Amino acid sequence: MTQPTQQPRTQPTARTEPGHGRAAAVPLPEDGRRRVAVEGLRPEVDGGRFPIKRARGEEVVVEVDAFADGHDLVKAALLHRHASEREWLAVPMKALGNDRWRASFRAEALGRHLYAVRAWVDDFATWRRGLGKKVDAGQDVTVDLQIGADVVRRHARATQGAARVELERAAAALAEAAPDAVTLALSAGLLRLVEAAPDLRFATTTSERAVVVDPPRAVFSTWYELFPRSAGPSGQHGTLRDVEARLDEVVAMGFDVLYLPPIHPIGRVARKGKNNAVEAGPDDVGSPWAIGAAEGGHTAVHPQLGTVDDLRRLVARARERGVELALDVAFQCAPDHPWVTEHPGWFRRRPDGSIQYAENPPKKYQDIYPFDFECDDWQALWAALRDVVLFWVEQGVVVFRVDNPHTKPLPFWEWLIGEVKARRPEVVFLSEAFTRPRVMERLAKLGFTQSYTYFTWRNTSRELTDYFEGMARAGVREYLRPNLWPNTPDILPEALQMGGRPAFVLRLVLAATLGASYGVYGPAFELCEGRAREPGSEEYLDSEKYQLRAWDLDAPHSLREVVARVNRIRREHRALQTDRGLRFHPTDNEQLLCYSKRSDDGADVVVVVANLDPHHRQSGWLELPLARLTDAPAVQMHDLLGGGRYLWSGERHFVQLDPHAAPAHVFAVRRRVRTEQDFDYYL
Amino acid sequence: MTQPTQQPRTQPTARTEPGHGRAAAVPLPEDGRRRVAVEGLRPEVDGGRFPIKRARGEEVVVEVDAFADGHDLVKAALLHRHASEREWLAVPMKALGNDRWRASFRAEALGRHLYAVRAWVDDFATWRRGLGKKVDAGQDVTVDLQIGADVVRRHARATQGAARVELERAAAALAEAAPDAVTLALSAGLLRLVEAAPDLRFATTTSERAVVVDPPRAVFSTWYELFPRSAGPSGQHGTLRDVEARLDEVVAMGFDVLYLPPIHPIGRVARKGKNNAVEAGPDDVGSPWAIGAAEGGHTAVHPQLGTVDDLRRLVARARERGVELALDVAFQCAPDHPWVTEHPGWFRRRPDGSIQYAENPPKKYQDIYPFDFECDDWQALWAALRDVVLFWVEQGVVVFRVDNPHTKPLPFWEWLIGEVKARRPEVVFLSEAFTRPRVMERLAKLGFTQSYTYFTWRNTSRELTDYFEGMARAGVREYLRPNLWPNTPDILPEALQMGGRPAFVLRLVLAATLGASYGVYGPAFELCEGRAREPGSEEYLDSEKYQLRAWDLDAPHSLREVVARVNRIRREHRALQTDRGLRFHPTDNEQLLCYSKRSDDGADVVVVVANLDPHHRQSGWLELPLARLTDAPAVQMHDLLGGGRYLWSGERHFVQLDPHAAPAHVFAVRRRVRTEQDFDYYL
Repeated sequence: MTQPTQQPRTQPTARTEPGHGRAAAVPLPEDGRRRVAVEGLRPEVDGGRFPIKRARGEEVVVEVDAFADGHDLVKAALLHRHASEREWLAVPMKALGNDRWRASFRAEALGRHLYAVRAWVDDFATWRRGLGKKVDAGQDVTVDLQIGADVVRRHARATQGAARVELERAAAALAEAAPDAVTLALSAGLLRLVEAAPDLRFATTTSERAVVVDPPRAVFSTWYELFPRSAGPSGQHGTLRDVEARLDEVVAMGFDVLYLPPIHPIGRVARKGKNNAVEAGPDDVGSPWAIGAAEGGHTAVHPQLGTVDDLRRLVARARERGVELALDVAFQCAPDHPWVTEHPGWFRRRPDGSIQYAENPPKKYQDIYPFDFECDDWQALWAALRDVVLFWVEQGVVVFRVDNPHTKPLPFWEWLIGEVKARRPEVVFLSEAFTRPRVMERLAKLGFTQSYTYFTWRNTSRELTDYFEGMARAGVREYLRPNLWPNTPDILPEALQMGGRPAFVLRLVLAATLGASYGVYGPAFELCEGRAREPGSEEYLDSEKYQLRAWDLDAPHSLREVVARVNRIRREHRALQTDRGLRFHPTDNEQLLCYSKRSDDGADVVVVVANLDPHHRQSGWLELPLARLTDAPAVQMHDLLGGGRYLWSGERHFVQLDPHAAPAHVFAVRRRVRTEQDFDYYL
Repeated sequence: MTQPTQQPRTQPTARTEPGHGRAAAVPLPEDGRRRVAVEGLRPEVDGGRFPIKRARGEEVVVEVDAFADGHDLVKAALLHRHASEREWLAVPMKALGNDRWRASFRAEALGRHLYAVRAWVDDFATWRRGLGKKVDAGQDVTVDLQIGADVVRRHARATQGAARVELERAAAALAEAAPDAVTLALSAGLLRLVEAAPDLRFATTTSERAVVVDPPRAVFSTWYELFPRSAGPSGQHGTLRDVEARLDEVVAMGFDVLYLPPIHPIGRVARKGKNNAVEAGPDDVGSPWAIGAAEGGHTAVHPQLGTVDDLRRLVARARERGVELALDVAFQCAPDHPWVTEHPGWFRRRPDGSIQYAENPPKKYQDIYPFDFECDDWQALWAALRDVVLFWVEQGVVVFRVDNPHTKPLPFWEWLIGEVKARRPEVVFLSEAFTRPRVMERLAKLGFTQSYTYFTWRNTSRELTDYFEGMARAGVREYLRPNLWPNTPDILPEALQMGGRPAFVLRLVLAATLGASYGVYGPAFELCEGRAREPGSEEYLDSEKYQLRAWDLDAPHSLREVVARVNRIRREHRALQTDRGLRFHPTDNEQLLCYSKRSDDGADVVVVVANLDPHHRQSGWLELPLARLTDAPAVQMHDLLGGGRYLWSGERHFVQLDPHAAPAHVFAVRRRVRTEQDFDYYL
C-alpha cells in the first residue's frame, strides 16, 4: 500500500545531534526558547482549513489560550491584515483569566482578511512586577535594577530613533541605581516606551486563519424569484424588458434580490413538454435548466428573452432601485449545447458511442448531459466554467444562485468561488444543495456565501426548534449562512398545498423572521398557488419549469401587501438582520411557536409568536423572560403585523391567534422610559 | 512587523494557467478529480498536533465524515501502522449513516502508532447498484455491461497474478454481454475480487494522526511513596537496602508502583533545616530536592542511601514482586551541584556575578539554582537532562515522577519524553504540575503519561462531581490520565488535618475508585498523620522533606488492612481499572456521594456510596438506574468493604453510613441468574 502523503510532525527520525554522544531520535525544535504555547484559537473552521465569514463592518472577535511555563507574565497580540496588504496590524489582547485572551478587529474591506495570534513572555513586565514586590518588602534592589537595565537595553535594540535613545538613557539610569531609579523603573512612561518596542525574539505565532468579508447583503437579503418568460402580456413569451417593467412592484414588496432561472437558449433535443411530459409539443418552451442550443450556451441569452445588452440594462435598472439581479448557475448541457460538439472530451462517452446522459437508475434524463469532471481535460473544463461566471460578472451580475452544486466535485467549487471572489469579492453565491447535512455544510465551508436549508420542510414546533438550534451551534454559524425558502419552482411543500392562505402567511412570517435571508418564488407565492401536479408530489401543477404561466397579479387574495409589510419590518428592525441572537421560548401549546431575536448590541428585540395550525384558533401561555431580554421591568409589545399594542411584565403571557385573521404576532419590544415630566413613553 | 511563518493554503497568488486566456488567481488543486471529502476525524487532539493515548491491548475506535458529490457510492478504510513499520494495514470502515464511518484497530505493540483515513468513490459498487436497478426495471443493459467491463478492467490493472487474470476474464465476459454476464456482474465472487483490488487513483487520504501506546500500568496503577532515608532502623539513616526490606509490606498493601523522592547527593550550601528552617544544624539531612553536592549530581546516589548498584538491585527485587520502582525527576541544582562549576553557562548570572537563585518575589530560595533554559547553550542543556533520564532507564527504572514540570519550558518536555519513549516506549512519566488547567492539560498533550490532579482539594459532592465530569469530557480524556493523591509530602490537605481516621479512609476510597490510578504518601497516610506545621498550612509538621522520621508501622490505628482491601478490590474489578465509565448519581443528601463505574464491556459494575462528612452519620436516598447499568431486573449489592449483601431493584435506594464504622460502601453489582434447578445465584 502507498503511504499517506503528509508526515507527522514529530515522527521519530534521527536528525540532530545535540551533544553528549547520544543521537537524538526526535528532532530538536527550531528554537527551544520559544516558551509560550498558543492553542484553542476561536473562531476557526476545521483548524483553519476553511475561512470563517463576516459581513463588512462586522467585528471579528478572536479568543485564544496563551501561556508559558512558570510564573512569568505573558503578552498576546491579535495580528490581522487584508490579504492584499503586507503589513500586519497588531491589537493587544486582553487577559480574560484562566489563560484565555481576547481581542477583536473590524473587517472594513471586502475580500480575504488574515488573522493570527502572537504571544510572548514579557520579560520587562515580569521584572517590573518582581521589583515592585521587593521594594514593598523593603529589600535591597541594587542588583535588580542592574538586571532591569539589561532588559531595557534589549528593548532599546528592538526599536530605533528617539525611542531607542530614551530607552538607552533609562537603562543607564537603572544600571547606575540612580536615586530615582526605582521611580523610573516603575513609571508608566517607561512601561509605555518598552511596550512600544516589544522583544519578539522568542514569540510564538500561530498559523494564519482567514476570514472572508462579504458585502452586507451576504447576511441580510430578501429574494424574489420569477420566470421572465411569464412576465409578458398574457399568452406571450415574456422578455427581460418585461422584467424591467416588474421592478417597481418587486421593490414595493420590499425585495432586494431578484433571481431569474437560467436565461440561456434552451435545448431542442429531447426537450420536455408541459408537466414534464417526455415528449414536447411543437410550441412547448422547454425547461430553462436544459441549457444550450444552436443559438448558444452558458454565455448566451435566449433570443426570446432578449440580448446580453438587455440583461446589462436590467441589472442597471434594478440596481438603481436597490435591487441586485441574481442569475442561475446550472452547469449541465442540453444535447444540442455547442460544447457537446466543440469539447466532446468534457462529456463521458458510452461504449456504443453515445454520450452519457444524466441517470438515477432506473430513471433516465436524456435531455441533460452532465459534464465529466473526471475527464483528462478537467483543467480546461474548470477554467471554462469559471469563465462562464466571470462573463456574467462582467455584465454586472454579482449574485448567483447555483443549481445542484452537490452534483459537481467539491474541490471544484472551492477553486471557482475562490477565483471569482479574488477578483470580485462582492460576488455572492447561494448554494442550492438540498442534500445530506455534511455535504451542505462542506459546500458552505468551501466558499458558498449562502445556503438553502431544510426550513422548507420544517413545520412543527419541535422540527423548527431543533433545526434552528442545531444550526446555531457555534461551529456551523461561522461559515454557513441560511437562506430560507417557503417554496421554490421545484418544491411546493405539503404544508402550502393543504393550508391555504393562512399557511402562506405563516410560512412567510417564519422565513422572514427566523432567517436574516429568505426568499420566495413568485408570483406563485403571493398568489397562494397551492395545486400540486398529483397527490403526494411536491411539483407544481402546470409548473413554469415547462410552460408559460399567466398570473393575475392584482387578484384580491394576493399577499403582496402582507409581503410588503413583513419586509418593511425586516428593514426597520436590526434584530431581524442577523442570524445571531435567535432564542426559542417555551409555550404550553405545541401549536404555538415563540422565539425572540436580538440585535448584536441588544438594543433591538423582536418577539414572534406563531400559530402553526393553519386551520384552527390556538391559545396558550408563553414563558418569555422579558426582563432578561430587555433589561427593562415592563415593556410595550407592539404587534408590527396586526398593529395592536400590549403592556407586558413578568414571565408568563397569554396569547390567542386566529390563523384566518393573523397566524402570527411580530412584536417590537419597546422599553418603557419615564421622562422628567413623569410621562411614560416606549422606545 | 514580521509575518507569521505559515502561509494560508489558498492565499491568492497567481500560479497556474489552466487555459482560456485568464490567469488563475487561486491555484488549481493537485488533482481536481479527488472527489471525496474527509473531515471530522475522531479521536484526535488539536487537529492531530498531539497524539492520543491508549494502553496496549486497548481498541482505537476511529470515526470520520467521508462523502463525495452526487450519488456515487463511497468507500473508506482506516489505515494504521506502528511507526517502525512501513506498510499500512487497512481496515474497511463501516457506514453509520449520515456520512459517518467507523472502524477500529487494537494497539498490540508499545510505542507510537499512526493512523489515517482513506476514502474514495467506489466506481464498481456504484455501477453494480445501477445495473441491479435497471435489471429489476427490465431495461436493456447491454451497454451497461460494456461500461462495467471497463470498470473491471481498471481494477484488474490495480492488481496482479491470478486475481488480475480472473478480473480480465470477467471483464471480457461482461464486454461480450455473454448470456450469464448479468449474473456474473452481480455475483458476490466478482465483488470480492474487485474489492481486493481497489482503484485508489483518486482516493483522499487524511494526514496522519498518532497514538502513543503505553503499558497497561499507564492507565491502571497504584502508587506508594516513601522516603528511603526514613526506612532504616529507628534513628538511623535508611538505605536502599532498607527499602528492599519494606517491599513485601508494600506488596501486601497492594501497591504496584513504589516511588522514591530524589535519591541523589543533597547540597550542603544554603541547606534548609528541620521544618524548612533557613539555617540547617550540623546534623540536618536537608531536602532531597536540593540536588547535587561534591559526591555528584543527578546521576549519582546519595552515599548514605547506597550505590547505583543498590538501586539496580532494588529495581530488580521490586519487579520480581510485580512492583515498578519510580524515581523523581527534579531538574534543579543545589549551589554545590557539580554542574554549577562544570557548566556555568546553564545558569543565569546576576550583574553582581552571583548565580540567580529561585525566586517568587519577595520570597527567595537561595538553596535552589534553576537552569537557565533561555541560555545560548540550551541544546546541550536539554541533551544533558535527557541523558539523566536515560541513565536511570539504563539502570532499569521505567517510571518517573517529574517534579514541577510546569516551571520548565513546555517544548522541552515534548522533546525529552519523545526522546526517551522512542527508545523505551514502556517508560511512564507522571506530571507533578499543580498549576493552571491549561498548563496541566498542555503537559499531558506534550507527552506526560499521567498527571496529578486537583482531586487533592476536591471535597464536596459538587466539587467532586464537577471536577470529574469536567475531566470526562471526550477531548481531555484522549490525552490526560489522572492520578489521584489524597496526600503528598508537600500537601497535607485540610480535610485530613480535621477529619481523623474516617477522613483518611474516605479519601482513600474516593481516590482508589474515582481514579484508575491513585497514590498515597506513606507511611504518613496509613498512619493517619494529620498534624500540620502550623494552622492554615498544608505542610506536615516535622516533614520528612527536611528530617528523618521514625514510623511505628505496627501501630493499631494503621490503615494498612483497609488499604490492602481497597487495592484488592481494584485488582478484582475491571470497572475500577479504567477512567471511562464513571457516572455520578443523584442523592437527596449532599453529604452522600454516589457514583458507578462500568468496565468497557459492561460486564463489571461497581457502585460507590460515600459519606463525605467524617464526623456524623448520614442517611438518604439514592437514585440509581440499576436496570440501565446492568440490564438485570434485580441485583445483589455486595459491599466489598463491609461485607454486607443487599438485594436491590428499582431506582431509589436508602443508605445510611456511619463514618466511624465505614465511611463508604463499595458495592459489586451482581446480576441475578436463575439456574435450571430454579435456584437463584448472583454473578
